[in-house]
Amino acid sequence: MPEIQRQLAAFIEGSATADLPDDVLDQAKRSLADTAAVAVAGTRSDLATPIARYLSGTSGAYAVLGTQIRTSADRAALANGALAHALDFDDTVSAMPGHPGGVILPALLAALGQEPRSGNELLRAFVTGYEVATKFGAAIGSGHYNRGWHSTGTIGVFGACAAVAALLRLDREQIAAALGIAASMASGLRVNFGTMTKPLHSGWAASAGLTAATLAASGYTGLAAALDGKGGFFDVYGTAESTPESFIESLGAPYTLASPGISIKKYPCCFAMHRTIDALERMRAAGILGDPERVRSAGVHVPPGTLKPLPYTRPVTGLQGKFSMEYALAVGVHDGDFGLSAFTDEAVRRPEIKEVIERTFVVEDPECSPGDPDGRRASAGTRGFVDVRIELTNGERHRLQVRHAPGSPARPLSWASLREKFFACTEYGRLPAEHARAALDLIEGLTEVADVSRLVTHLAPVAEVADAVA
Amino acid sequence: MPEIQRQLAAFIEGSATADLPDDVLDQAKRSLADTAAVAVAGTRSDLATPIARYLSGTSGAYAVLGTQIRTSADRAALANGALAHALDFDDTVSAMPGHPGGVILPALLAALGQEPRSGNELLRAFVTGYEVATKFGAAIGSGHYNRGWHSTGTIGVFGACAAVAALLRLDREQIAAALGIAASMASGLRVNFGTMTKPLHSGWAASAGLTAATLAASGYTGLAAALDGKGGFFDVYGTAESTPESFIESLGAPYTLASPGISIKKYPCCFAMHRTIDALERMRAAGILGDPERVRSAGVHVPPGTLKPLPYTRPVTGLQGKFSMEYALAVGVHDGDFGLSAFTDEAVRRPEIKEVIERTFVVEDPECSPGDPDGRRASAGTRGFVDVRIELTNGERHRLQVRHAPGSPARPLSWASLREKFFACTEYGRLPAEHARAALDLIEGLTEVADVSRLVTHLAPVAEVADAVA
Repeated sequence: MPEIQRQLAAFIEGSATADLPDDVLDQAKRSLADTAAVAVAGTRSDLATPIARYLSGTSGAYAVLGTQIRTSADRAALANGALAHALDFDDTVSAMPGHPGGVILPALLAALGQEPRSGNELLRAFVTGYEVATKFGAAIGSGHYNRGWHSTGTIGVFGACAAVAALLRLDREQIAAALGIAASMASGLRVNFGTMTKPLHSGWAASAGLTAATLAASGYTGLAAALDGKGGFFDVYGTAESTPESFIESLGAPYTLASPGISIKKYPCCFAMHRTIDALERMRAAGILGDPERVRSAGVHVPPGTLKPLPYTRPVTGLQGKFSMEYALAVGVHDGDFGLSAFTDEAVRRPEIKEVIERTFVVEDPECSPGDPDGRRASAGTRGFVDVRIELTNGERHRLQVRHAPGSPARPLSWASLREKFFACTEYGRLPAEHARAALDLIEGLTEVADVSRLVTHLAPVAEVADAVA
Repeated sequence: MPEIQRQLAAFIEGSATADLPDDVLDQAKRSLADTAAVAVAGTRSDLATPIARYLSGTSGAYAVLGTQIRTSADRAALANGALAHALDFDDTVSAMPGHPGGVILPALLAALGQEPRSGNELLRAFVTGYEVATKFGAAIGSGHYNRGWHSTGTIGVFGACAAVAALLRLDREQIAAALGIAASMASGLRVNFGTMTKPLHSGWAASAGLTAATLAASGYTGLAAALDGKGGFFDVYGTAESTPESFIESLGAPYTLASPGISIKKYPCCFAMHRTIDALERMRAAGILGDPERVRSAGVHVPPGTLKPLPYTRPVTGLQGKFSMEYALAVGVHDGDFGLSAFTDEAVRRPEIKEVIERTFVVEDPECSPGDPDGRRASAGTRGFVDVRIELTNGERHRLQVRHAPGSPARPLSWASLREKFFACTEYGRLPAEHARAALDLIEGLTEVADVSRLVTHLAPVAEVADAVA
């Protein structure tokens, strides 16, 4: 695998003038809008208070989205990255595997400086970071994740570094150095899942990638062969199944954003619950669900392995509710509201939900995953299909199978659905509606924007600006 | 290995009132003085310009030692850590293996805030960080380093985190959380040796440890069992020879600073050259060396493996000279000056040195390492002995064997030698002499100091302060 790093640097350098298909740019806008919105919503998560305390006493020109807090570039990247992943509502890709948007956008916003950058530059840098992160993850392979690393952190740093390097228009040597520095900054253990450190992996990778690129832009050196060979990144962090030799040729051929595409979550909970929720929503629309009293039992058969990330059968906190198939079934039967407010402590603790949850069941069933029973080729939320089964008190039985989750590449969210999510998130995060509207307008027309700094002004208005707009 | 992290947290929490032997405190003062001085000298290294550019445009109250630069806490920790390791002149321990002082002091200085901290508090926190880092390194074992990680980075982060947690007086739960966060921040690849990213490992670990402790102090959570078990730090970063079960009982029993002790470098180059240089200095003092014309040949026999970190037989830069046994021999023959100015590009490129270097030889000789030929039990600069051999043009032959390097635990630098190094480093770093003197006075009397903030004022005077003192 000779010269991977220099060829990767050449790809990143060339991104300023690369021919980007319209669908790639459109998907990038969608991911960017989604990331911004979930970060604003993240200001209502359990991270908000510790993050605000952590930033108190710091100063700078860089905004924490959805707040009036201004801090240094590094800490803004850290905070925005953590908040973007706080609700587990940010976009996801199966190849990496992980959440690239929540790492890349915060790094880019923290790289905006005195010199104005156009919407085109921001979008191209975003595409570049996304492409590098996802192809890096595919090249190192799932064994890396299985060994205990959280790719969002360990691989995300290269995506953030690449995006910032592209935005700052570093030359090839500087980019190679930046990637070398980033190789010494990759970290993030999956064992921390379930604590606030999971979303911190996004923020730390954003901050690290920003630091690596900024240092290299300042003339700092890192090895231009830190990915390759004995003791290099692939050797130390990879496994026997890593295929670094496939890395370079996979870049932009096609772009991940276009194919296989990304998943933008419709529901603020574990992706492994989304197909079941989709089935429940459709059954409600069809009139099967609606009156909780009429439901004798509600269950779902899922492919083996689906329940590994869903250990909470009787959740008692909002966070546990995000990882509970039983809770999803109970909400489907009770009221069908799967919005942000369905995953708070209060919502999960409703007595009437506890009552309904006793009428639910979940079964791992090999028949739901024909040909891939142990799920080696797909993640828990994408393999096989789910089979939702409702029995009513009048004896009626209903079944609905769903193969692809809404928001997944096979069923991409329409711009209309994305707008709905955007406004639900920004409203949940208490961003004034006129600012939310202005931000989304700006993102949708990003290729025409000469100076993207207004994006931050919209997404993190300070009081005076809010007054001026209102 | 149950509950390692909570017991480690208990040790760190207890450090505020632990009974610390006088020799531990004295060694801590020595390491602290040494680290401060080499960081100031580091402002003359090749890192200085990129670091200054990297910090331009940032702001804050935190000083970069040896400069008038003030920046954010995070970036000050990063810069001071990198500068402390820039000349490869900072203290070192064989068990970790690595350079703890250059990680811990920068993190502590960046944790000083509004509330005044006494010299005792600073010293205790320094001891705590040192103890945690070195025992952590011993518990994970040398296989970690051999796999490709630079322990100064990967393990240093825990030392920095522990030191800051002790200084900020976090409670046991907060400390356990901080260690959990730090486990997701450990990074640093040895493959980057030879670039500026090697010293960056110190700075990044300092900044990461500071961030982990500061986040935990703000209520941020990390897993309190992130070191233990499947997918935990020891599992993912360790090897079969790791002994986490020995970790807790080794803490403070005795303190590393007292036994086995630390090495404070007398010469600003690779530790594997120090015994040879010591022999050359002694031969000069004995009148054997002095006139380069009288030397027919100068050579050294060293234990097998010693030359692995010393690949430059004909160095052409100051940095290469730091890793060249032949250059050390030539300097010993030529002028015997092994100070900071001996390892600049200009000094290494002197034609007269090039001429002398042709009369040197270096031999890896199993007889220099009886009982441990492949050096499994010691590092390149400590195993066996070196045997320096000089032949004069008059036919005289002289040999001198040296087992322990000056500055190593068996031959600790006297306070007088340390003062000499301190002033040589601060003068090289262009710190005004009266500030250097005031800083060293303060460090020597640290246990009596009520507010350590003056230490930074002395080590990084701004113009107005400099005027006031002068």
